[in-house]
Amino acid sequence: GYSQLGRSVEGLDGAAEWASIRALLPDLKGRRVVDLGCGFGWFCRFAREQGAASVLGFDVSENMLARARATSDGAISYAKADLEVLELPEDSFDLVYSSLAFHYIKDLDALLMRAHAALATGGHLVFSIEHPIYMAPAYPRWSQDADGRATWPVNGYLEEGPRTTDWLAKGVVKQHRTIGTLLNILIGLGFTLLHVEEWGPSSEQVAAHPEWAVERERPMFLLVSARK
Amino acid sequence: GYSQLGRSVEGLDGAAEWASIRALLPDLKGRRVVDLGCGFGWFCRFAREQGAASVLGFDVSENMLARARATSDGAISYAKADLEVLELPEDSFDLVYSSLAFHYIKDLDALLMRAHAALATGGHLVFSIEHPIYMAPAYPRWSQDADGRATWPVNGYLEEGPRTTDWLAKGVVKQHRTIGTLLNILIGLGFTLLHVEEWGPSSEQVAAHPEWAVERERPMFLLVSARK
Repeated sequence: GYSQLGRSVEGLDGAAEWASIRALLPDLKGRRVVDLGCGFGWFCRFAREQGAASVLGFDVSENMLARARATSDGAISYAKADLEVLELPEDSFDLVYSSLAFHYIKDLDALLMRAHAALATGGHLVFSIEHPIYMAPAYPRWSQDADGRATWPVNGYLEEGPRTTDWLAKGVVKQHRTIGTLLNILIGLGFTLLHVEEWGPSSEQVAAHPEWAVERERPMFLLVSARK
Repeated sequence: GYSQLGRSVEGLDGAAEWASIRALLPDLKGRRVVDLGCGFGWFCRFAREQGAASVLGFDVSENMLARARATSDGAISYAKADLEVLELPEDSFDLVYSSLAFHYIKDLDALLMRAHAALATGGHLVFSIEHPIYMAPAYPRWSQDADGRATWPVNGYLEEGPRTTDWLAKGVVKQHRTIGTLLNILIGLGFTLLHVEEWGPSSEQVAAHPEWAVERERPMFLLVSARK
């Protein structure tokens, strides 16, 4: 299950994309941070270690929140919440952060509208999401081209909507959206886009983990930072 | 060859993505327009019909320029130029436009830097480019998934650089870049991104041209508008 994955056991450094996400973060010293989909609280604790004044973590899993709370300090608050309907106070945060949660959200327009309203002017939104190339296909698994090279079979890319997979649990439903749709939602809300990264392991990471080489054939994650 | 394609014979309306590009254009009345890769001059004439004060079209093909000049008026100027080294006057245009030319450019950073400098403050950059999903693979052609559905075999997506194809002519070299790289170049130059569209035919277009349905399985073009 999820709790055995590298990112769950080793925390942020167990997530291969963490260094790339970290490079997108603003200085957190004295800042008010909210983490949408905080899981075991690794990022919340990181933000606090970086000097964040307050950190608020939301997750839908009470089990994850229980583990998160066990290692918390007073400046971190955790709360159970369904991100589909979560209400946030307006003009109250300097960073809205989310790691690999947005592709589960059906009404992402509404969540991002609330995230925008929750940010103070000049505040940042930094998030990762499964890349639509990764999410789109009817059969999201490797095949081979005529040379035997690993190939990712893209179809349905322009048909947005639910995708059902059996990752970790049977019948998990993800919401496929194009990069264009995602970025245009942000632009329409008044965000200024700062960085868009189609993430795969770096050459250095592949040198250290040769089995990751295939992950450079297509991007696994999309990382975005934007400013209100 | 190229002159037999719908877009060459019928002009802008022969290009299926034209309505989507047109929707990204600012009001052209009284504006100074430059078209990078103007071909037969269809867009230059359109811009003039929309009331552009001046239109400057560049292309590397003297044959195309000769045909463009044959239907020109005095407010349109055409010149032969290699976009890799084209110099543009600074602060001199309200719109830099380019249709399906940028994926041939090796030093796109430098061209976009010159395009940015050539724009007046508040001026627009609107362009189309082959989508990196379309351009990346070693074998850019349809295959089928387990259900017989058309599938586009993506690999090499994160390996930027030349791709050689035999489209129209043997050994045409295109330059593959990720969407992230392209957008980050624009952001780094100081552009504000206004719209990012991964283009395929609309449902209405597919209804009118059922043979285009497959083009919704993966995006063919990327359309971008940005403001200086």
